[in-house]
Amino acid sequence: MITVEEAFRAVESTVTSLPQETIGLDEAVGRTLAGEVRSDVDSPPHDKSVMDGFAVRAADIAAGITEFRVLETIIAGGLPTSEVTEGTTSRIMTGAPLPEGADAVVMIEMSNLEYSDPTPETVILNVDGNFTAGKHQMQRAGNFASGDLIFEANHRIRPVDIGLLAEVGASEIMVVAQPSIAVLPTGDELVDCSRTPAASQIRNSNGPMLRAIANQWVPEVKDLGIATDQRQDLEAKIRSGLKHDVLILSGGVSAGTMDLVPEVLASQGVKTIFHKVKVKPGKPIFFGVADRGEGQRCYVFGLPGNPVSSLVGMHLFVSTAVRKMTGVLQDAARPVRLGAILSAAHQTRGNRPTYWPGRRCNHADPRLVEALPWNGSSDLLSLRQAEGLIYFPVRESAYESGAEVEFLPF
Amino acid sequence: MITVEEAFRAVESTVTSLPQETIGLDEAVGRTLAGEVRSDVDSPPHDKSVMDGFAVRAADIAAGITEFRVLETIIAGGLPTSEVTEGTTSRIMTGAPLPEGADAVVMIEMSNLEYSDPTPETVILNVDGNFTAGKHQMQRAGNFASGDLIFEANHRIRPVDIGLLAEVGASEIMVVAQPSIAVLPTGDELVDCSRTPAASQIRNSNGPMLRAIANQWVPEVKDLGIATDQRQDLEAKIRSGLKHDVLILSGGVSAGTMDLVPEVLASQGVKTIFHKVKVKPGKPIFFGVADRGEGQRCYVFGLPGNPVSSLVGMHLFVSTAVRKMTGVLQDAARPVRLGAILSAAHQTRGNRPTYWPGRRCNHADPRLVEALPWNGSSDLLSLRQAEGLIYFPVRESAYESGAEVEFLPF
Repeated sequence: MITVEEAFRAVESTVTSLPQETIGLDEAVGRTLAGEVRSDVDSPPHDKSVMDGFAVRAADIAAGITEFRVLETIIAGGLPTSEVTEGTTSRIMTGAPLPEGADAVVMIEMSNLEYSDPTPETVILNVDGNFTAGKHQMQRAGNFASGDLIFEANHRIRPVDIGLLAEVGASEIMVVAQPSIAVLPTGDELVDCSRTPAASQIRNSNGPMLRAIANQWVPEVKDLGIATDQRQDLEAKIRSGLKHDVLILSGGVSAGTMDLVPEVLASQGVKTIFHKVKVKPGKPIFFGVADRGEGQRCYVFGLPGNPVSSLVGMHLFVSTAVRKMTGVLQDAARPVRLGAILSAAHQTRGNRPTYWPGRRCNHADPRLVEALPWNGSSDLLSLRQAEGLIYFPVRESAYESGAEVEFLPF
Repeated sequence: MITVEEAFRAVESTVTSLPQETIGLDEAVGRTLAGEVRSDVDSPPHDKSVMDGFAVRAADIAAGITEFRVLETIIAGGLPTSEVTEGTTSRIMTGAPLPEGADAVVMIEMSNLEYSDPTPETVILNVDGNFTAGKHQMQRAGNFASGDLIFEANHRIRPVDIGLLAEVGASEIMVVAQPSIAVLPTGDELVDCSRTPAASQIRNSNGPMLRAIANQWVPEVKDLGIATDQRQDLEAKIRSGLKHDVLILSGGVSAGTMDLVPEVLASQGVKTIFHKVKVKPGKPIFFGVADRGEGQRCYVFGLPGNPVSSLVGMHLFVSTAVRKMTGVLQDAARPVRLGAILSAAHQTRGNRPTYWPGRRCNHADPRLVEALPWNGSSDLLSLRQAEGLIYFPVRESAYESGAEVEFLPF
């Protein structure tokens, strides 16, 4: 039985990144850049006004000139046609290019004009306070210049990144491909969640939950239905699952007589990387790999049937594998672990390091976390309040209020 | 000019929740429950074994019996057929129902059997350690009972909630409808991000960014293209945008002569709720509402054209409005504000309370945040590292390293 750390390393050293592909910017959120992105423009592209007002020579203001002849109005998207010289000014809008000669902008509030007034022949500018060259203007390339590195390779694209990518013209980008993922819960006791379970049956909760979690990573997740513990059915569904990049099974990986999954996986050419991990819940987790030919592989995770065990395996190991496949660099592929402080004493149970459902106690101090009441691996109820997992490394131990722990947010 | 707090209250008191609709569990993530959800089953549905092993009477073990006659094998999904009596046992798999008479389970590891062995006629059970009734079994309804409240109304459904909803049979659920959202950037200076801007032009970065952010809330966001500053074009595109539940404009809301947006909105029956907010960046933000007949309304946000201003308005006010429309309760609809500590001294600029791009410094203490180098509202570059916004309430002020601030994660 290997440790959690060893299991992470096994996943990281086994899983490789998928090939590259080109996509449009509208599909880019959640994808990982396959190469660096550089700008093809200066930002801003010209010296520009950051206020509505009048473009002037700062020297004129310093010289005490207050009345100016107005040359033209320059709007954002327009181009100045006249040079600003001593005693002259051009009306200018926010974002518009500064005309030649001008080196500062006087806000319209310091003029005798209203916003709605048409362009006048002359304007009075009464400047108060400190006014020097550069006032209310921004220099060409003040943010970045053409050719500058904007994003490094392996950056995972978030919604807030889309504006910058658009600005530098990255309307089509090279990203790492996404895996196709299939989910297959197993067990004679399972019925679809739309049905009323007969005696001894339970509803299939893992299938929908695992698909919903995988859907955070990739837009389409294949639902393979429910496999019974009949060998033929299980074999057929596993064979179909192995056509995907990732196959996630749940149930059938502990060592009971009905637990056919590892045997059927072996018969289908799946090589075991690990089978048990020293973790609670989720010990009998299976990880293996199958060659699909043409350099393609299927990574197979067999998660325990109890739903919280299944969730822990998904959050720790499947997520790491999927992130690594989609191009996230090793250090960033593991789940985030935040320093946290227990808000109340807690007694762990069992003989393995434990991931326990928890939540943050208050927004004022986001380090404070609370271990939720929890009956163990079949108890999904505590998840409705859980915001993540608290990691307790020491078995059968009493943790005091204020103890330092790690929190893994979902 | 109203304060940020007044703007939040104006949004909250104006925006109402959308009607209810029924959806399937597969579409439920991100939706808000329109009513409470109760269970129609006990969890677990029967006393069950939580180990692979042998169901026994604890009294037999206490009496020192070690050899037992094996009645049958009970698998998960199967039903026991025989009562366990003195000196007898049934082989049982994890999750299988406990047979009548039995009140505890002996792990297979404490028997003379291997997992792979067929069911024997007799078994030797050598129990060490403490063994009492209830061992390795879980009682019917130990997690929750039929009729129990599982989720309250207005709960926002996350991927980890899907398992519990499936277990209690919520394969179809009543949720609050989602708004249709349209995005319309305006300005003669804008060209599509796939084009090379001519002199004085810039690429439309707001459109793709605002759509990507809105896409976190709803799956489809309408792209209305780019409106020029020509009245007719702007009017036609706004008229089309007002057919949606939410219309998000960017640009054209400051007070320059080319800023037609507020005027055109008024001519289209949009009632102004507020126009300016005392915030930096993003002061000239517009919020209004139009009646569409039949009780339907369009909420209109006019965000400033500078992309970071636009992002701040989106993160603070548009998100709050959309969450409130989708049924999130008032307190939870505003962006999350976490207590944070500045990792380095910081000098704010300008004359308004400021939201400044920032990031967390290290995972060991998630309170520590760093204000990123930032040139102001047109500077998208600092966003590539930003994980959220740091709120500086005091204008033109020096904040020391270690100062307490608020952090609003994206």
